[in-house]
This record gives sequence, C-alpha cells and structure tokens, in this order.
Amino acid sequence: MHRDEIPTPALLLDLDRFERNLARMAAHVRAAGKALRPHAKTHRCPEIARRQVAAGALGVACAKLGEAEVMARAGVPGLLITTEVVAPSAQRRLTRLTGEAPDTMVVVDHPDNVLALGRAAAADGVTLNVLVDVHVGARRTGVEPGEPAVALGRLAAEQRALRLRGLQGYAGQCAHVMGWAARREASRAAMEPLMDTRARFAAAGLPVEIVAGGSTGTHDIDVELAGLTELQAGSYCVMDLDYRRIGGRGSEALTTFEMALTVVATVVSVAADRAMVDAGLKAFSTDKPFPPEAVERPGVSYGFAGDEHGRLTITDASRPPRLGERIEFFPPHCDPTVNLYDRLWVLRGDKVDAVWEIAARGRSD
Amino acid sequence: MHRDEIPTPALLLDLDRFERNLARMAAHVRAAGKALRPHAKTHRCPEIARRQVAAGALGVACAKLGEAEVMARAGVPGLLITTEVVAPSAQRRLTRLTGEAPDTMVVVDHPDNVLALGRAAAADGVTLNVLVDVHVGARRTGVEPGEPAVALGRLAAEQRALRLRGLQGYAGQCAHVMGWAARREASRAAMEPLMDTRARFAAAGLPVEIVAGGSTGTHDIDVELAGLTELQAGSYCVMDLDYRRIGGRGSEALTTFEMALTVVATVVSVAADRAMVDAGLKAFSTDKPFPPEAVERPGVSYGFAGDEHGRLTITDASRPPRLGERIEFFPPHCDPTVNLYDRLWVLRGDKVDAVWEIAARGRSD
Repeated sequence: MHRDEIPTPALLLDLDRFERNLARMAAHVRAAGKALRPHAKTHRCPEIARRQVAAGALGVACAKLGEAEVMARAGVPGLLITTEVVAPSAQRRLTRLTGEAPDTMVVVDHPDNVLALGRAAAADGVTLNVLVDVHVGARRTGVEPGEPAVALGRLAAEQRALRLRGLQGYAGQCAHVMGWAARREASRAAMEPLMDTRARFAAAGLPVEIVAGGSTGTHDIDVELAGLTELQAGSYCVMDLDYRRIGGRGSEALTTFEMALTVVATVVSVAADRAMVDAGLKAFSTDKPFPPEAVERPGVSYGFAGDEHGRLTITDASRPPRLGERIEFFPPHCDPTVNLYDRLWVLRGDKVDAVWEIAARGRSD
Repeated sequence: MHRDEIPTPALLLDLDRFERNLARMAAHVRAAGKALRPHAKTHRCPEIARRQVAAGALGVACAKLGEAEVMARAGVPGLLITTEVVAPSAQRRLTRLTGEAPDTMVVVDHPDNVLALGRAAAADGVTLNVLVDVHVGARRTGVEPGEPAVALGRLAAEQRALRLRGLQGYAGQCAHVMGWAARREASRAAMEPLMDTRARFAAAGLPVEIVAGGSTGTHDIDVELAGLTELQAGSYCVMDLDYRRIGGRGSEALTTFEMALTVVATVVSVAADRAMVDAGLKAFSTDKPFPPEAVERPGVSYGFAGDEHGRLTITDASRPPRLGERIEFFPPHCDPTVNLYDRLWVLRGDKVDAVWEIAARGRSD
C-alpha cells in the first residue's frame, strides 16, 4: 500500500526517522552511563515500547495504571507508573498487575497512600515496588524534598509488602524552557533538591538504586547529575513542533531527534482565498499556542476551523491547494495527538510497512 | 454498580437530563413544524443516535464518512454526511455505504466533486442523494450562495446517478454568539443568502425538499425561516459550558437543555495550596479559552496541568480536597471531549444503568 492510499486524516510514522531517534537516544544514555525508561504516554503503543526495550531501555514509564495494564499484557517489562494510584479499586488493579508483572513500580507521595498500598499489596500477597515521588517545582505531584521525602521513604520501607527502590523527580516546568543554556540552568536548579534528597536517603540507609527523572528537553542536561540513574524522556522517539522549537545544544532547533510523526489530510473544499482540509481539532491536539505546520508544502498556513476542519490560508497565490491534494502536517504536541488515533501507519519511504495499534489510547484510568 | 466505583477519569451521562433534552428538542421542532436531523459528531454513539430517531429525528448528520459508516452498520437511518467526500477511495466507500443504506446523503460544493461522485455512483450502480452545501459565512466549506450554487445544483441534477435533494448551509460562526438577540441578528443575516438561494433553486425547478442548517445555539432562531426544513443541532443532547454561557431567550444562560455530560476524576495528590486530579488534557478537550468547571463542589477551580493531571486551586481553605475524593466536572466543549473516550457510563441517579460504546470515536476519516 502506498502512503497516498491511506484514508485521511491519519497518523503517520516515518520508520527511518523513528529508528534513528531510538538509536541516538540509546547511544546517548549508554555514553553517559545512564539507563533509559522512556515515557510510553507519548505513544501508548506496545510495538514502540517493545522496540525501545530492544534498543536497550529498561522498560517504559506509564503515566497511568491503565496504560501500564496494556503494556504488561503486551509483554513489555519494567513498567513504572508515574502517577499515584489512590482509588481502592485502582489499587486492587495494581496488585493484580504486579502479580502478573512483578517488576512493576509505582510512585508514592503521601503517607496515607503508602499505608493503603502496603495493606493492599499484603492482602493480595504481592510485593509492590515503589519510588518516592519528589516535588521538584512542577507544582503537580510529589512530596516536598528533604526531610518530608525521607520520612515518607522510611514509612514505605517499613511496609512489609512494599519494596522501596528509590526516587523520582519530574521537573516538567523545565522540559520546554527555550534555549539550551537557560534550560540547563532551570533544570539544575530544579533537580538540586532531588539530588539533596538522594543524599539524605543514602545517609538514612534508604535505597537509591533508582533515581529517575528528565525529559526529552533535558536529555543531555540531566545526565550530568551523578546521582540520577535513569532518564524518562518520551517525546524523543517521534518528536513534535513544541520540542523542536526549544533549541538544542549549540543549535537553534532541537534537531538531535527527527520529526517522525505527521498527520496526513486531504483538501476537501477550495475557495479563492482559502482551502479546507479534513483535519481539525479531532485530528490534532489544541493545547499549544501554535498550529500544525505543513510539511514540505510552502504557500499555505494552517488554522483550526472546528472539530473536523482545518483552514489553509494561501500565502503563495501561485500555488493554491488543489481539491483532493494530500498535505502532511507536523503536530504541535505529540502525546495528546497520538491519543486521538487508534493506529499508526508506519511508513518506509512511501510504502506502508506496518500498522501499529495504539493499544493504550484513551487509557488514562 | 454505583457511580463511585467507576474507574477515573471517565465520561458520565446523566440519563434523566439526557432524556429531557431529547424530549424538549423533539417538542420544539414539532411545534415549529420542522424536522430534526441532529449532528452525531457530538456523541459518535449509535445508542444516542437510535434514541434521537426514536424521539422523532429523521436520522443523524455525520461530520465524516467514517462516522456515517459506523452509524449505518448500527442500523441508524437517514444519514447526512456534512463534509464533502473528495478522495477517490473515500468515494468508493461512500457508494458502498449507499448500497447498504440508500437514504444516505452527502453534501457537495464543487463541480469537480459533483462530476466525480456522479461517475463513482454510476460505476457502482447506486443513486447518491446530494445536497448543495452553501457557504453562509463560516469560511469553511460551501459554494457561494446565489448563482454559483444554482449552477452547481443544475450540474448535480444533470448527473444520472445523483439525486439532488436540496440545500445545506451551516453558519457555524453564529452558533456561539453571546446573547440571544445578537445571535438572532447574526443568524438571520447569515442565513438570508441561503433562503435567497432556496428561492432561486425553486425558480429554476431544482428541488428544495430539504433545506438543512442550524445549531444548538440557533435552534429557536432558525426555525423562524419558512424555507428551512430541518435543524442539525447536535450539542443539545448533552450540552457543555460553551453552549450554556451563550445565553437563552430571556435568560442569562442557555438552560433549555441541561448539562447531562460530566467527567469524573479522582484527587491523587494533595499539597498545602493545591490538589491534583487524574484528568488532564487527555480527559478534556482544550480548544476553548476556559477550563472545566467542578460540579456542585465549591472551593476549587480547575486548571490544566499536562496530559494526565488537572490542578485544583483551593479557593476555600475551609474545604480542601481530600486524597481520593471524587470530583465531577462539566467539560468546556462536548464534541471533542466525547471523542477522547471509548465509552459513556450512563447513570440513573447514582446507579450505572448502562455503558454505551462511543463506537465512532476517532472516525474522522
């Protein structure tokens, strides 16, 4: 099947670019002496997770339990659930998952949650691996660094059915700081309390075998931290406009990783001053303040025009879009865009090489 | 099953409110002497479509062919595809669908498209019902009103395998004009060219058996147009914040239809000044400039905090969210929010009455 036969709108993956991204990140972490547990929330696709593991990753990080359930059932090892599992019914699902995949880990940030997980794991006869989730400025989850984190670590270590493995700190606020030098400064400042907490853990005899953090934006920054053991970068495997624009080390755009993900659309209506494509806000996420960008198609700029339409403003009158023309776009943000699709059309050049199920799509539960 | 046992985040439908919405719209169009073909792009759920038809609707409008394929296979009659079908492979799917569901209709706005559809339908031995899609100011699809529309209608009428049925004009720019009087003025001005085109169609001997248009926002405005035969309102069945705020006839909020759709989330992390819920931008669409609103839960305001998290700012310190607390939210925009979920948990009071598949989720192709 040729790429031009794929029904639109559709999500496409350029396999050559994707494979180079995996190889580059694998080489980077190997050279830095770190491990990699890439975030599967980017792709929600077991086949991508399997390829990341084949390229040397320890496993994958999952934003949610539901995502981890899908990955485990697809045989993906080394799962780390990076959001606290709080509801009693979810804790039962977690212990069941741990029974099937004993190396699964989950983060904790509250004493009540530690006690509840300890009881649930004991009741179900499993040992649950936990990391203390440390707040490093993202104002999302995490216990405060320093003594509160140590106290929580002690509590976790005391629970018979829990096995404390170390720490996590995700400084999401640093991931998209524009310019490499500024981003390095921000990430260093944010991660310093995590490193301090790591030292306190070690001094208290608590395990620091795993200290996890980092993003695609800080992949070549956080590896400078001696205490960090593994990176959680996710977007690097497919990339998006939001990451490209932050800049790389000595480059205006982040080009270490290639733009492997596109959405293909069809021009379904043309007028004198505009053309409409069949991809709107059900085809691209809208959470970034800039629109999708046409790929190698000068003369048009995209604007959202409702659930199912994008409006192309014609910026070069000598090249108006034709009715039926197919145009590809880079999405602003990969994770929530991928989450709109059931499958990924995987291309080697112009040929469809495979179709990969985005099996954990919608699994935010 | 009790509503508190549903894994979060999840999409909930209040059945009492939903049923009243269906009954109110059915009574409204009946009293106005109009027909109703509600837009299924709102819900993408065959069970909702069946209930709309059972309440008197002619069928449902579908934004895309893929949506219509799902509805047809679920036995929903009277499908109108409101986006032009342009790609050759899509036209083959359309003729196949028409073979299965002969009353299916599609809109056209370009001579090349009319000719291509005529050939495809003739080649596949079906008669394809078409409406001329007239541009009424939304700057989306549609041929210009007046003579260009008449010329296109003539061309469609000349195609042996096409059956011209009338006109469609969707004035999307009017749907959310704030305040009923201003909205009425805007819709009247926008729809006037459609009514003029209708008169020209009639004078030219072209069919005007169907003249379709309107939205939830203009449901009690567009019925004043003598030439309009059917309304396409969609959101009325579940409602959202965006429609509630536009105001009704003599009321500050649009309250004719009730807020039947919510997303339930769990508080998974608490801190002194905030609490995090497990519903972020994969749980709510982000295309509106205002956030989800907590339902009957004063003291907190929601802000997006990434793919999987929402940050509750505590506005009443006397009532901080508890870890594990479940909170429901009204989504800003129903259509793209529903499109994030595979199923709808249907509640009668606090009891789960049914689970309805959002079977056309993701079917923007």
